Amino acid sequence: MRVLVTGGAGFLGARLARHLLLKGHLAAEAIDELVLTDLTPPPADLLTDARVRALTGALLAQREALSRESFHAVFHLAAAVSAECETDFDLGMRSNLDSTRALLDSLRASGNAPRFVLASSVAVFGSDPYLPMPPVIRDETLPTPQSSYGIQKFIAEQLVADYTRKGFIDGRNVRLMTVVVRPGRPNGAASSFLSGIIREPVNGHEAVCPVPLETRVALASPSRTIEGLIRMAEAARAELGGRTAVNLPALTVSVGEMLDALETVCGAQTRARVRLEHDAVIARIVGGWPAAFDLSRAARLGLAPNPDFISIVREFLAERAAEAPGRS
Amino acid sequence: MRVLVTGGAGFLGARLARHLLLKGHLAAEAIDELVLTDLTPPPADLLTDARVRALTGALLAQREALSRESFHAVFHLAAAVSAECETDFDLGMRSNLDSTRALLDSLRASGNAPRFVLASSVAVFGSDPYLPMPPVIRDETLPTPQSSYGIQKFIAEQLVADYTRKGFIDGRNVRLMTVVVRPGRPNGAASSFLSGIIREPVNGHEAVCPVPLETRVALASPSRTIEGLIRMAEAARAELGGRTAVNLPALTVSVGEMLDALETVCGAQTRARVRLEHDAVIARIVGGWPAAFDLSRAARLGLAPNPDFISIVREFLAERAAEAPGRS
Repeated sequence: MRVLVTGGAGFLGARLARHLLLKGHLAAEAIDELVLTDLTPPPADLLTDARVRALTGALLAQREALSRESFHAVFHLAAAVSAECETDFDLGMRSNLDSTRALLDSLRASGNAPRFVLASSVAVFGSDPYLPMPPVIRDETLPTPQSSYGIQKFIAEQLVADYTRKGFIDGRNVRLMTVVVRPGRPNGAASSFLSGIIREPVNGHEAVCPVPLETRVALASPSRTIEGLIRMAEAARAELGGRTAVNLPALTVSVGEMLDALETVCGAQTRARVRLEHDAVIARIVGGWPAAFDLSRAARLGLAPNPDFISIVREFLAERAAEAPGRS
Repeated sequence: MRVLVTGGAGFLGARLARHLLLKGHLAAEAIDELVLTDLTPPPADLLTDARVRALTGALLAQREALSRESFHAVFHLAAAVSAECETDFDLGMRSNLDSTRALLDSLRASGNAPRFVLASSVAVFGSDPYLPMPPVIRDETLPTPQSSYGIQKFIAEQLVADYTRKGFIDGRNVRLMTVVVRPGRPNGAASSFLSGIIREPVNGHEAVCPVPLETRVALASPSRTIEGLIRMAEAARAELGGRTAVNLPALTVSVGEMLDALETVCGAQTRARVRLEHDAVIARIVGGWPAAFDLSRAARLGLAPNPDFISIVREFLAERAAEAPGRS
């Protein structure tokens, strides 16, 4: 089978690609070809695999080329991130709405109704003045997005649902939780510190925690996130129930518990590199995110959250060691 | 002030235009100009009013022209109807999604953030296999549209919400109920018979009722629908609460009660012109529509449903008489 991963050079995309290559099959079919599209080429290790083909450039510009291919499964991860979309409205509409629609139309034109996994986001949820968020979010909770990114993802879910109903694709809407611990550098996202307060002290650097320690957040590790994407691709339609998006499992923890876990695994000296420095803007944004989810539908699909934050810290340490074996 | 009505030659659009001209103002400002866009010119009576200007042609083609105007209020009623959208997917996407987005971008380009009323529809609701509809629909019920028309309207609501949040427009999402009694000829819509079983016998013609008499439906008369659109345009933002769509009030009645009301107002002979002839397809479609609504938010805006179906029949008779005074 031929599999497409958009955003295939990104953090999650490259990781998903590695996982698929190692696994070798999807929904009981061998993966013969894995096509990775992104603005930049995928990491070198992926390009050494004979099954990998890279398509580099804007997704929107690849519309014609993609409609001449025939994919059996598609993971649509490419997106402009929330901060970009808030700053540059047109960029977000183009990257997250027009590109998704063009991709769906390419797949429709190819005529073989591939399985299609949309990486949507928990960012669809937000508190509307009329509709404050309920204490526990369910798959049937009405999203009232409070960002252009959230609106664009929620619209993409609607397109995927209708293209699926029409038989153009076999779509699955999957809402990703905040993924922690992300490697790399801190970025401008309001959620950046949630990875930073673990990654930076582990790497011997200082980090700032801008929210109160009692702030509760809903998280998933990279491996659980990849597991969720693959499970959603492999599920039979009857298992999914309907076309309504599935919220992936989340571990709900307080930021204080995250730091306690860091101390348990890495010691008091590592934790001491995290400085509390209140940032009212970030505290308000992060405080407005949903922190607790009803996980029953995901559980019926066999998906469980990370058991605790200690295991998330350990996953990060293990992957860090695997990537640079000489590093302590 | 300058007011735009898209779909201004249609049944509701022309009626709204007449109402606005008679009222003379909107949100305490005098209406100096009323621009009506549609594929066809508006009815002759509207064109005789010096305040009316018609723009005839596809809305999508008027994007540039509209961005050079500056409107203070917009009622967006233009749309392809549900049956068309189900038959011709691309037509629906163009008419209901691309046209709406182009209109919103025109208004954004004009820079004066007009009040914007989107005529959305109760057709956003449908039963997803995972999410059967609750017995009573609330404004916070998650729509899971089961038609392309419903998806497109729900996407349009999301765009209106985000363009409003960004300050590009001052938008209000309004979900219209099934409007009864519509004048004119029966059409291909599954809901057509709901007007037909009243209009046709009153006009001396036979009509077919394709669903069981106990089928419950949620209806509003044309005048209540226009009243709802205008109230939503005039409401202060604080009155609206949030950007989440408002379901307009509906009268819930059974089809049998509709025919009883027809008999009460027009006599047994008129009712006898309605023949019961079961149509499994229409019965399934109409049976899947939501019939009961929580009306508390609309009530806080001062909006009430028609008190009973007898008053809806009388409204139809009164307007029919006004349009053709010589007719009995």
